[in-house]
Amino acid sequence: MSTTKNINPTIIVIFGASGDLAKRKLFPAFQNLYLDGRMPKKFQIIALGRAEKTDEEFHNYVLENLNTFSRKAAHEDNDTDKFISHISYLRHDIDKEESYQELNTKLDSIDQAFGIRANRLFYLSIAPSFITTISVYIKKIGLAANVKQDRIIIEKPFGYDKTSAIALNEMLSETFKEEQIYRIDHYLGKETVQNILAFRFGNSMFEPLWSRNFIDFVQITVAEEVGVEERGGFYEGVGALKDMIQNHLLQILCMTAMEAPASLSADDIRNRKADVLKSIRRIKPEEVDHYIVRGQYDAGFIKGNPVAGYRQDKGIAPDSKTETYVAMKIYLDNWRWQGVPFYLRSGKRMQEKQSSIIIQFKPVPHSTFAYGSEGMTPNRLIINIQPAMDIKLQFMTKKPGLSLSLRPAEMVFDYFSCSTMSPEAYETLLADALAGDPTLFMRWDQVEQAWDAIDTIQQVWKSTAPTDFPNYAAGSWGPEAADELLARQGHAWVSNTPVTLNE
Amino acid sequence: MSTTKNINPTIIVIFGASGDLAKRKLFPAFQNLYLDGRMPKKFQIIALGRAEKTDEEFHNYVLENLNTFSRKAAHEDNDTDKFISHISYLRHDIDKEESYQELNTKLDSIDQAFGIRANRLFYLSIAPSFITTISVYIKKIGLAANVKQDRIIIEKPFGYDKTSAIALNEMLSETFKEEQIYRIDHYLGKETVQNILAFRFGNSMFEPLWSRNFIDFVQITVAEEVGVEERGGFYEGVGALKDMIQNHLLQILCMTAMEAPASLSADDIRNRKADVLKSIRRIKPEEVDHYIVRGQYDAGFIKGNPVAGYRQDKGIAPDSKTETYVAMKIYLDNWRWQGVPFYLRSGKRMQEKQSSIIIQFKPVPHSTFAYGSEGMTPNRLIINIQPAMDIKLQFMTKKPGLSLSLRPAEMVFDYFSCSTMSPEAYETLLADALAGDPTLFMRWDQVEQAWDAIDTIQQVWKSTAPTDFPNYAAGSWGPEAADELLARQGHAWVSNTPVTLNE
Repeated sequence: MSTTKNINPTIIVIFGASGDLAKRKLFPAFQNLYLDGRMPKKFQIIALGRAEKTDEEFHNYVLENLNTFSRKAAHEDNDTDKFISHISYLRHDIDKEESYQELNTKLDSIDQAFGIRANRLFYLSIAPSFITTISVYIKKIGLAANVKQDRIIIEKPFGYDKTSAIALNEMLSETFKEEQIYRIDHYLGKETVQNILAFRFGNSMFEPLWSRNFIDFVQITVAEEVGVEERGGFYEGVGALKDMIQNHLLQILCMTAMEAPASLSADDIRNRKADVLKSIRRIKPEEVDHYIVRGQYDAGFIKGNPVAGYRQDKGIAPDSKTETYVAMKIYLDNWRWQGVPFYLRSGKRMQEKQSSIIIQFKPVPHSTFAYGSEGMTPNRLIINIQPAMDIKLQFMTKKPGLSLSLRPAEMVFDYFSCSTMSPEAYETLLADALAGDPTLFMRWDQVEQAWDAIDTIQQVWKSTAPTDFPNYAAGSWGPEAADELLARQGHAWVSNTPVTLNE
Repeated sequence: MSTTKNINPTIIVIFGASGDLAKRKLFPAFQNLYLDGRMPKKFQIIALGRAEKTDEEFHNYVLENLNTFSRKAAHEDNDTDKFISHISYLRHDIDKEESYQELNTKLDSIDQAFGIRANRLFYLSIAPSFITTISVYIKKIGLAANVKQDRIIIEKPFGYDKTSAIALNEMLSETFKEEQIYRIDHYLGKETVQNILAFRFGNSMFEPLWSRNFIDFVQITVAEEVGVEERGGFYEGVGALKDMIQNHLLQILCMTAMEAPASLSADDIRNRKADVLKSIRRIKPEEVDHYIVRGQYDAGFIKGNPVAGYRQDKGIAPDSKTETYVAMKIYLDNWRWQGVPFYLRSGKRMQEKQSSIIIQFKPVPHSTFAYGSEGMTPNRLIINIQPAMDIKLQFMTKKPGLSLSLRPAEMVFDYFSCSTMSPEAYETLLADALAGDPTLFMRWDQVEQAWDAIDTIQQVWKSTAPTDFPNYAAGSWGPEAADELLARQGHAWVSNTPVTLNE
């Protein structure tokens, strides 16, 4: 959350620089930071890849991809060319020590050119299975020996359960101090997610309402329209619980439920987030079916177009047990939230792409008003994260006319309606990593607690295969059991459609 | 607040039927109720005036004025002609008993035609000085002898101070029971004013915030752009305190500050309103200058056009001491509002026409956020009554960009954006009077308490003439002393302009 202008010269080393993430997100993010004057005055990007390429070949490759994926035009002036001239390509074999020695030589030569030992930012944009190897060599050659200057960014998933995450972290700890490790969850870089804290703690009128006294339930949805696309090979055997709930949804839960931090410092904020994860009520194996619903999509229609079922998708077993949908009820055992259900759901092939937080307030304690045909709607605060990026307040108002009856209404704040374009999540996060601000990255205890919160579910699901897969049609809002999960409590999923005032 | 369809046949008697109010408001309101099917199945309007006119002449006069003043076209079909055929004109001399006997004969003949003793609704659209005479004759001839069926509507002002109001009420009480007397304040018929109750008690999320715990101050503004126009003769010697504060502003104060009523019944609501008036802290004569500011407009500019000062207006004394502006600080001595200032202001020749309620919440108890150039804005709920009819919520939000700094934002609910045309205040109030629902009319104790709340001010002002009149320019927001009134408390009048999000 700081600006990067006055920071040390920095060398950015991207492992997997020819990969999909680098192409779509990392180079565009660095380019945009550069065009906005937010890169360090002196910086160099070392792009590591397996193939033999000249700098010029790689520069052309980057330029081409910027034209496709960057939010800022690459052509308009020669600033993008200047940006690209900061990139060196280096052939790299992850398993070979000499590759790391060559990298070391390159780093040293850049330091010499800069006339100073530059900061080093290692970005591991590679499959998780390579993390250990890279880490071991970095330690052996001493590439990241300066604790204050050198950082490593690691993409999710961080492990695949609590045990493996602990093992991975212990291994990393041999090379890096916790303060050097930047575990990225790109959801935390989104403007609308960051705004949750601003909205809650920059205003005096919401916080008094923000508790079990006034809130009936909270609903957090991260729904995708897409299926597994080209990611079938990765997704199969992983599933929605690990791919979405353990990271994105639990992080949004933290932002929504956390206590006010003492300050905006990284650890003050992350302490309060970790408190939320710790307070998640752990459930017993026999309770899993009561609190969690899993689903897998069948064939169906998305916006009128037929799509195949999960088991027919590329790279998926015809009898796959992998869940593509999870709905769960979470209780937080703390003073503020005791007894308030947090309903989380995430799925692929949903009716629409939608990430949202819905705070539903309790009904009025006593009302003698008459209601129109739309009936009584509880007060709701709706925070749309994407693709809509707005905040809505739904409330009751007098229906214009001679009688004193009510109807639902809403007011909307559109986050970007009057603004310049916003930075992409990766821009925010990379700028923070360059500046050494870990606020929006996950500290180890957060990751560990998040795994711990879902470990029992994973274990039960591993031992009891679902018998009803596929159990929801593509283009629906998930299996019927997800509706029952809320209905038992007298609740229902809130569809996030605008209130219409037609009479 | 009821529909009028199934109510008894009714005869409406309008005293002053050739006057300005009848022309602009009453006939259009009855016509609109008629076109909406909301008049009683059987009804007759007896229009009383001093001049000799035939029914046909009066019908033409009404039709012509409907074309000018009614919100519904008079031409479109022959329904308006049908409506007009319900009007009988009767020459009437307020001072002559025989006029009332003729009225009596007319009423009887209509009853006979209806085949039933109809309800009677007497509308006194005449100068206050005639109320006594009319009331005495109504009693003498026995025109309103049926307590359940007969009602009288009286326009403000109801008296000119507490003593005169009591005297007037005692006199009226000899003819009418309290339940027959409908004291009208057309502000209470406005949709946006009625919506205050709906908004406060139809939603669960505002009421918990609605107290001294979370609210810094409340600002109620009723500002006019116009000067005294043709009303100089009436206004001179009356002034803003009696013309606006004693009725409209104190009534809005009641809606804003009242406790939740046990039900929507007229007396439950009016009990809670009366409580507010009773809780207004009475001030001592020597405190008047500390709590209240009076002003009179000088020449100035309204939207760029030069306008004369009050003392140059038609019918105004060149050394007039009449105030055209009042600002005052009110405290309510009750549990909910102890210590919260309510700032009321009303004036003529203000910068813009605006009636609004602004609830300003306390600042956040602790904030480490950075603020943009717009600075920190407190949370505000803005209820616009007219001409804008909307509800706005002003709050802080994250400024899009890499840093976590805040900027002001707002969301708006436009009361009529998606609605059919709303009824005029007089339609609502007349429909209620026809149906015998006094909820939106002022009960005697409300009027008495309202006079009591300003009596000391009146007395002090009568004995100490202002030395600084005129003290504000037309087109401004009033005298400087009004700003100082708030500044002493660390507050400032909130200008009700939209938050702009330009950066």
